[in-house]
This record gives sequence, structure tokens and C-alpha cells, in this order.
Amino acid sequence: MKRILVIGAGRSTVSLIEYLLQQAAKNNWHLTVADMDLRLAESKTKGHAQAQAISLDITNPEQRKKEINKADFVVSMLPAFMHTEIVKDCVAAGKHVATASYVSPEMLSLDDEAKKKNILLLNECGLDPGIDHASAMKIIDEIQKQGGEITSFKSYCGGLVAPESNDNPWGYKFSWNPRNVVVAGQATAQYLDKGQTKYIPYNRIFTQIDVIDVEGIKYDAYANRDSLNYIDAYKLQGAQTVLRGTLRQVGYCRAWNILVKLGLTDDSFVIKNTQNKTYTQLLQSFLPDKHHSVKQNLLAFIGSEADASSIEKIDWLGFFNDEKIEMEQGTPAQLLQHLLEKKWKLQEHDKDLVVMQHLFEINNSKNPSLPKKITSSLVVTGSDQHHTAMAKTVGLPLAITIKNFLTGKIDLNGVQIPTCKKIYEPLLQELETHQIIFKEHFFS
Amino acid sequence: MKRILVIGAGRSTVSLIEYLLQQAAKNNWHLTVADMDLRLAESKTKGHAQAQAISLDITNPEQRKKEINKADFVVSMLPAFMHTEIVKDCVAAGKHVATASYVSPEMLSLDDEAKKKNILLLNECGLDPGIDHASAMKIIDEIQKQGGEITSFKSYCGGLVAPESNDNPWGYKFSWNPRNVVVAGQATAQYLDKGQTKYIPYNRIFTQIDVIDVEGIKYDAYANRDSLNYIDAYKLQGAQTVLRGTLRQVGYCRAWNILVKLGLTDDSFVIKNTQNKTYTQLLQSFLPDKHHSVKQNLLAFIGSEADASSIEKIDWLGFFNDEKIEMEQGTPAQLLQHLLEKKWKLQEHDKDLVVMQHLFEINNSKNPSLPKKITSSLVVTGSDQHHTAMAKTVGLPLAITIKNFLTGKIDLNGVQIPTCKKIYEPLLQELETHQIIFKEHFFS
Repeated sequence: MKRILVIGAGRSTVSLIEYLLQQAAKNNWHLTVADMDLRLAESKTKGHAQAQAISLDITNPEQRKKEINKADFVVSMLPAFMHTEIVKDCVAAGKHVATASYVSPEMLSLDDEAKKKNILLLNECGLDPGIDHASAMKIIDEIQKQGGEITSFKSYCGGLVAPESNDNPWGYKFSWNPRNVVVAGQATAQYLDKGQTKYIPYNRIFTQIDVIDVEGIKYDAYANRDSLNYIDAYKLQGAQTVLRGTLRQVGYCRAWNILVKLGLTDDSFVIKNTQNKTYTQLLQSFLPDKHHSVKQNLLAFIGSEADASSIEKIDWLGFFNDEKIEMEQGTPAQLLQHLLEKKWKLQEHDKDLVVMQHLFEINNSKNPSLPKKITSSLVVTGSDQHHTAMAKTVGLPLAITIKNFLTGKIDLNGVQIPTCKKIYEPLLQELETHQIIFKEHFFS
Repeated sequence: MKRILVIGAGRSTVSLIEYLLQQAAKNNWHLTVADMDLRLAESKTKGHAQAQAISLDITNPEQRKKEINKADFVVSMLPAFMHTEIVKDCVAAGKHVATASYVSPEMLSLDDEAKKKNILLLNECGLDPGIDHASAMKIIDEIQKQGGEITSFKSYCGGLVAPESNDNPWGYKFSWNPRNVVVAGQATAQYLDKGQTKYIPYNRIFTQIDVIDVEGIKYDAYANRDSLNYIDAYKLQGAQTVLRGTLRQVGYCRAWNILVKLGLTDDSFVIKNTQNKTYTQLLQSFLPDKHHSVKQNLLAFIGSEADASSIEKIDWLGFFNDEKIEMEQGTPAQLLQHLLEKKWKLQEHDKDLVVMQHLFEINNSKNPSLPKKITSSLVVTGSDQHHTAMAKTVGLPLAITIKNFLTGKIDLNGVQIPTCKKIYEPLLQELETHQIIFKEHFFS
């Protein structure tokens, strides 16, 4: 019997744990789901015969090590900054470990020891990073194998709300970490554009956007952090253009940029004594005064760029109707997040939407049978508030790859991510059986 | 004999050390000037009979403590973040200490112990902070004593270049820390405007400016950091408007804002392998491509706001003529600073300029003999590259206050700044003998 320990039982673990439970009997596994909150862990194991829910305080080293020692494979589903101690303990105890997060410098520093002990440190095996790596590398490897050269690679991903559940003008509800949405873009974007390195600072990340068509629907796309890393990671040294971006409903970026320009996403200083203030007063504090009403001041502030649709979005959030702040204090970004969490909450029967698209341009001079252009697109709709497309696309790649490893389909050790064919090939095949299917279009 | 130890012999210490040397014989002082660079220290003591230059590595605790133990009064003229260990040693050894920097939390935490030991921790005793406190509080105390209420306080300061030495379109040369100029405004400005707290984030700090007239010359003024602190520090609880700002030549802010919007002042990520690149290429990396030349792209980027005067300023810096970067790597802000240090260098016979202005509005209903408005303005021109207005206005307040303390004119202990009458009254009187004179205008 193999013992799997999943640490963290938050919303993104639903599909991961369900899959592991389904596979437990057949593969002779025992699953332990550990969380600070025992009831949350129990809500995931649901009394399954080969599973157990426990309360675990990961800041308690003794308890943490004890549980890790009992396991054969450990999955950390905690926020990225909390992985370090767990992974160190796993490597020390010789246990395989997996996360959906980016490979951190701490993770890399454990690579040698993990290889010596023949243990796997699986990372970036969720949606983004995860499915993006797998689906892009499948095409890149194939094109390069056939003598083609990728000259341009653009890749976009967004966690959105399904059209049938979209009842707000932003076209957005939270299906993952709200904080990341509020401070998105604060790291300067870096990418390669026709052979030239380009930088976009925060003040224009939401204005310098592309409009992308995925399976007939248009989306805003803003550049996402450091795309230059992907040149080496995806073996794209010959490419002239390498860009990764984030997708939002058309018009979202324009309205969001007003909040950025106002300073409402600023996370660098704390505003105190806000409990009796309103979001209207907060907005007024970020506006130069000219007129009597906050709405008039906002229109004057936006100036010639003002469009009815952006104003409607800001209005809908409650900025003009004295919505109470309720928090005692916070950075502007924290106060805004508090408001957005109420407004952009995924309701019981709401369905979320995951959209991903890769765009390849190919120099096929060495093999004219290859296409000149490929698009590869994924659209996944969630089932409800709990069985979200986000939970499915984050959890299944991890669960499937863990199964492939524990059943001997994959034989790897050290730090691994799904850019490697051994991981992505069986992963993409099985994801198709879960209706996570990329549609590829070829243009010659 | 009293022994004074000055730690740090950089450009801002010229006037401080000259004053202390002039006073040494009369007051029976011995002066030690300590710097990492012995020759720099020697260039300040100039073989004076009652002075000594030494080489001091302040990261060496033994040597640091040894020198502090020999002294009666220690002056730290190092950058603010380097004061902490020195001040701790001084308090432990029972030595008085002075800096021109803002009171830090570490400084405040030593207040009790300093009071118990009856030692002085003098801070914020330079130009800004320093002369601003003294000159503003003189008027505020006087108005309040006579039954007036300050309803509005605005205060501006700038370290600039004198008109006769202004040979560049920016009207700027460095007379103090260049880094602070390059990253200026990155902390969100906070101030009080007609009873309402206002915030200005970095993306619009250089557009939301005032134009201020000081003794017949107009300046751009942008809001400076947290003005709200001054409400308590200056006893302005009744004021509806409290704003502090920084002065630049008219047109500077508009052109500088283009560099900000481009991302060239970004200090959050490092660009590598820049030694063989040019500033033209760097600029191109921050511009969306549309046209062939970088100048055309910049004009397209700025759009309808483009003015010939801003373009001339950017042109003058070398952005259009393939000026080499020379540095191997750096954040955009560091690469820009490297260029500016060459371009904005104060030359041998250049004169700098210090400008300060306070604007008071007064409710005089309880004492109609008081004015309704007061302006208090200071303009100081430097003598040359070494005897700058900046060195004079930073160094003399500290030197004079140290003298007033050591000669018994001031009897204070613990953390002190020149908002206190005991300090500012004799200080402002003596500054006038050095031609540091505020011109006050009264309006009824």
C-alpha cells in the first residue's frame, strides 16, 4: 500500500482529491488529507474507506515531520510561500513531493539531494503553470522534430466566469486567489517582440493590450510578468517573439486601468480608521477635486478616455453609492480586494471558465509540409461553485501525474516540470478523457 | 577640551566641518573627521591644528566603538540607513549624537535611555528636514501665540542649479544624492486638501503639479511623500490644508513624467548585459514599436501631450544618438541614474541653488491685527562645486546647533528636532549672519 499525504484542503484541491480517492482502491493507496481546519479536510475525504482527514499545523515541525514520515508521496497544495519547510522535510525523509507552484530557488537547491536519493520533486503541474507547459511543449517538440522552427510563440490564459453565469459588467468572478487579481501587473512585464526585448511597466500594462479570439469569443490580453524565461524553458532560442499574457473579458482592462491610475491598487501604504468610511470617500481621496459629486470628479479625472462602459463597471462596484468599507484599515489594494470579494463572489450555481490559447508561427522552409501557423485552444467550463474549471484544471494534472508516477508509468527524479515529454504525453492523453481537450488549428 | 567626531566626509559635510574648525580654537574643541577614505577626510581637515583626519570602517564594531569612546559629541553624516549602529554605540557610551536625517523608529526607541543618561539625540537638523522645521515653526508658534489659527500650510523645497549655471534644458544638476532624484515620488504622496485626505500614486505624481512663484521665479511643485505627518509635528490640528512639495524648473515634471511612464525609473528588476547597448536601444525596449526611428516611436507614444520642450530634454540626455550605457547591468532606474550623473554633473564653477517657500493661510478672527496670509521664502546660491548652497544649508544648521549645545545655549536631552523653539530661535538668528535669510511677506 502506498500512502499519499495531501497538505491543504482549500478550494483548488477538490478535483485533485476526488481523483486520488477514485483511484485509491484500484491502486491500493491510502490518502491522508491534512488541513489546519479538520472539517475542511473531512469535507474532502467524505468518509472514504481508504482516506483519513487530519488537522495539521504545518508550523509545528514535530507534527509536520511525523505525518511526512508516514507518507510515500506528499502533495503540498498550500500557497507557494509555505512549501519550503514541507519540501525540505520531504527530501530529508526521502519522500516524493509535488506542488502546482513555480519552481522556487529553494526547490532548485534541493535538486542534487533529491536526485541522489532518487526522489521526485514535481512542480508547476497545475493549470498555469502546468497544462500550459504540457500543451505548448507537445507542439514545440513535434514541430522541431519535423525540422520546423518556431519564430513566434504567444500564450494566453485566463480564469474567468462562464457566459451563462456572467451577471456583472466586468465579466469577472474570483475562481482563485483574489489578491493576485488585485495586484496583477505590478511586476514589470518583459517579453520578446520581433527580436527585441520589450518592457511594460505597471502604469501601462492594462492599456498596451491585445485582443485575442479564442473559439469565436474575443478577450482582452495583457502581458504577464517575465515571458523571457520561457525562451530557455520551451527551447525557443530561435524565436523572434515570445509573449505570455492574461485574458479578461473585453473592456475589463480599460476599466481596471482607471482603478490603477487612481491608485486604488496601491499596496505600499496603509490607510487607517476606514471602518466608518465608504468606498465613495475612498475614491474621493484619490481624485483631484474639481466638482461637487465624486462621479463628476471621476469623469473629469478620466478625461477624454472616459467611456460609458468603464464608468458603469466602477458604478456597479458601489463606488458612487456610499458602500461601507467595513475593514478597520488596509492598503488601498486590500480595501479594494475586500469590496471585490463581495462583488465578484462565485455563487452556488455559478460556473467558472478557464480559457487558454497558444499561437505559434513556424519557419517551415526545411519542411514545407509543416503548417506556417498553429493555434491551440482550450476552453473548460466549471460545473458549480465547488467543481470549478479552475479546480479541475489545477488539480487533475497533478493527480494524473502522481498516479502515472506511482504506477510506474513515469520514471523521473529531482526537480521536474511538465515540459518533459515523459510527463506531458500521458498527462494530455488522460486529460482528454476528462474533457480537457485542446483544439488545434493549422494554417499553411 | 571637547572632542567632536564627525563620521563621513562626503560633499554635504564641507560647510559643517569648516564651521566647526572655525569655532574650534575659540571654544577649545578638537575635531576628528572619520571616513573610509582617509584622503577625503584629510581634504576636509586641511591640516588644522585642532583637527585630525582618520580612516574609519564603521562596519568594524571595535574600531567604531573605540573612536566613539574618545569623543564627547558624535555627528553621523553617513546615509540615513547607516546611522543605527553608530547611534546605539553612542547611547551605550553616553555620548551626544547628531544627524541631518529623519528620526527613525530605531532612533525613537533610544529616547528613554538617552533621557536617563541626559544625552542629546539631535536629528532632522539640515535643510529639509531642518531649516524647513525651524523657519515654519517660528511663524506657526508666533501666529498661535497671538491667537491666530493656521488654516492652510504649504511648504516647498528644491535643490536646483542657479540660473547663471543653468546650461541644460532640464534646469537641473545634482547637488545631493542622485538616486533620490531618480526614484523620487515612488512612495505615494499623502496630504490634506480642504479637510480631505488626498493620495497621489506614482503614475500621476509628476502630472498633478502646482506652479509656485518664489521671489519672482516660477517653479513646478510636485507633492512629496507623507505630508500628513506634519499635522502633529507642526501643531496644525486646525488646518484644512497641509501639503509639502518638491520644486523643479518649470517643464521638468512634464518631461520627467515621460521617463516615468516609459518605465525608465523602474527599480524593481535588473536588465543584464547592457555594457554593449546604447540608451537609444534601452529607450526602444520601453516603447511599443510602430515606426522606424526611436524618436518617431517616442512621439507616437507620448501622443497628443507631446511638446517640443519635453522632447528636447530627452534628446539632450542622449537618448536619440546612441549614447553607450557602459554599465554591465542594472535596474532601469540605475541605468538612467548612470546617464544622469554624467549629464547633470555640477561643474567646477557651477553654482547650485536652494529654494524654499512656506505659504500660510490664517484665520485671524480672534486677532484681526494678524495677517490673513504669509509667505516665507528662502533662496540661497552656492559659491562653487564644493561650497554649494546644499552643503551650506545642510551643514550649517547642524554645526550651529552643535555649537549652541556645547556652549550651553541649549539645554535638551533625548530625541530632538528643530521644531522646538530652544533650537530654532538661536539657529535662525545665526543663519542670517551666513546670508541664509527668509523673506517674509504679509497679506491682510
